[in-house]
Amino acid sequence: MAPSPREAAPRLQQEMNAVVESVNKTIDRLLPETDLAENKLYQAMRHGTLNGGKRLRPFLVMHSASLFNVDPLRARRVAAALEFVHCYSLVHDDLPAMDNAALRRGKPTVHRQYDEATAILAGDALLTLAFQVLSEPDTHEDPRVRCELISALAKASGGHGMVGGQMLDLIGEEKEFDLGTISRLQRMKTGKLMAFACEAGAIMGKGNEPHRKALCNYAYDLGLAFQVTDDILDVEADPQDTGKDTQKDEQAGKATFVSAMGKEQAKERAEMLVKQAIAHLKIFDGRAEMLKELAQYVLERRA
Amino acid sequence: MAPSPREAAPRLQQEMNAVVESVNKTIDRLLPETDLAENKLYQAMRHGTLNGGKRLRPFLVMHSASLFNVDPLRARRVAAALEFVHCYSLVHDDLPAMDNAALRRGKPTVHRQYDEATAILAGDALLTLAFQVLSEPDTHEDPRVRCELISALAKASGGHGMVGGQMLDLIGEEKEFDLGTISRLQRMKTGKLMAFACEAGAIMGKGNEPHRKALCNYAYDLGLAFQVTDDILDVEADPQDTGKDTQKDEQAGKATFVSAMGKEQAKERAEMLVKQAIAHLKIFDGRAEMLKELAQYVLERRA
Repeated sequence: MAPSPREAAPRLQQEMNAVVESVNKTIDRLLPETDLAENKLYQAMRHGTLNGGKRLRPFLVMHSASLFNVDPLRARRVAAALEFVHCYSLVHDDLPAMDNAALRRGKPTVHRQYDEATAILAGDALLTLAFQVLSEPDTHEDPRVRCELISALAKASGGHGMVGGQMLDLIGEEKEFDLGTISRLQRMKTGKLMAFACEAGAIMGKGNEPHRKALCNYAYDLGLAFQVTDDILDVEADPQDTGKDTQKDEQAGKATFVSAMGKEQAKERAEMLVKQAIAHLKIFDGRAEMLKELAQYVLERRA
Repeated sequence: MAPSPREAAPRLQQEMNAVVESVNKTIDRLLPETDLAENKLYQAMRHGTLNGGKRLRPFLVMHSASLFNVDPLRARRVAAALEFVHCYSLVHDDLPAMDNAALRRGKPTVHRQYDEATAILAGDALLTLAFQVLSEPDTHEDPRVRCELISALAKASGGHGMVGGQMLDLIGEEKEFDLGTISRLQRMKTGKLMAFACEAGAIMGKGNEPHRKALCNYAYDLGLAFQVTDDILDVEADPQDTGKDTQKDEQAGKATFVSAMGKEQAKERAEMLVKQAIAHLKIFDGRAEMLKELAQYVLERRA
């Protein structure tokens, strides 16, 4: 029986579930609860990370790492560190001064479950923990590789990466951006962290330049496709499916692909991007099937 | 002419000024303004860091590094990275959801000068930049040393260090802490970052264990002395001198050394701690005079 076009193919779904399970275990181990007076902080960090996420970025880390025969135990630590960065950004993004979101994946956001100050601190501690995990020998035996991972993650997530993209996003609420600026915004906000996810495998496995470039290009196209489909979901999805408030972008006057090019053109753009993403993987001679299937899934997801 | 007891001794003052000048230059170079649409973020980061701070932690890095003949150019990068972490914590601490401070060093806090969202993002980007700087070869030729610096800074500043201490501080507004918990709170909130400042020199210079321990012990006593005198300044200083609102702790019902032991006993405690701090430096045979003078200054400062 052919899989439903809107569900992940069974094999992909199985692989995605496996990543969710293994990365959650790693996160759980790296973020234990304590009986310390400040345990509320660790609870908030757990709330912000162990919350039913799809673990798309960890999936990219694990499957790009497997292309270079990297020890999955090590790749899992990088996947968890990256997820800490992704989740801290969501915790801070959800704050009243930013998106003011009440729900995330169907559950109260961290500042709603705890309080604003705790959410700010939990985000800060998650970001810090990400770099701590990457710096430790368990992540890779070669300290040069660990430094390269840290440098790449910092560049992807800092002022010239994800955080800069978020700043642009906020500025876009008050200023009309052209399509070029929206693309740059999304590349910074989402694309660079996706690219790190894919490049991390090559860094750990000391892959050659063409392999690294191919993975980065795949990631940028995938990231943009992901963002375009996110914008489409924001206008047409059921909050029951996405587990978060919808039509928030339009209410906030945010510059999105849908607002800039209309829904139909946005859908075409997403399809084109996914085709392009898959084409970059030719260099791996059929060994990157899971990454190809993931790209297809991004197009067809409804949450 | 003997120096006024409440002013830094002339030689110390000269050294402190030299550190301020050189570290400010490094920070300025690491944080350039741009003509990008998101430049507001970089402006906010500059506002939060290039704001007339005393650069106490950079001073500790530079003078602990000089004990091990570390290249000052490299030490300065570590000093700047540490200052990014310290300043990000102030930017986030000042937010309405935390201390709700309007002034910092006599100037509007970042969220007052810009807005809350920008202050959150600027703090995030500063923290990220700190780790990026440490990961780069210019900081140290040995990647093992760079990883050790990153690991030590992350531990000192994360959930089990500074951020955990801030969480405890917030919990202390609603709960009475005993002196033991207040000491643990301050060790986490201030002490660990001070200890990193001093240990960083030994890490860079591959110092031996007794030297490292001595510097850490010095730093913990100094950090605690600094916090005790901070609490005293909060109740008795002129905001014109400190450049920030005073008596905020009492208003917020915060657990401080002054509230726990009274002003006079707190002063005695600070003196005792400074004596202890200086005693730890004996192992350096008179080569750590600047660190000793700094400890004395912490006791006598009025801002």
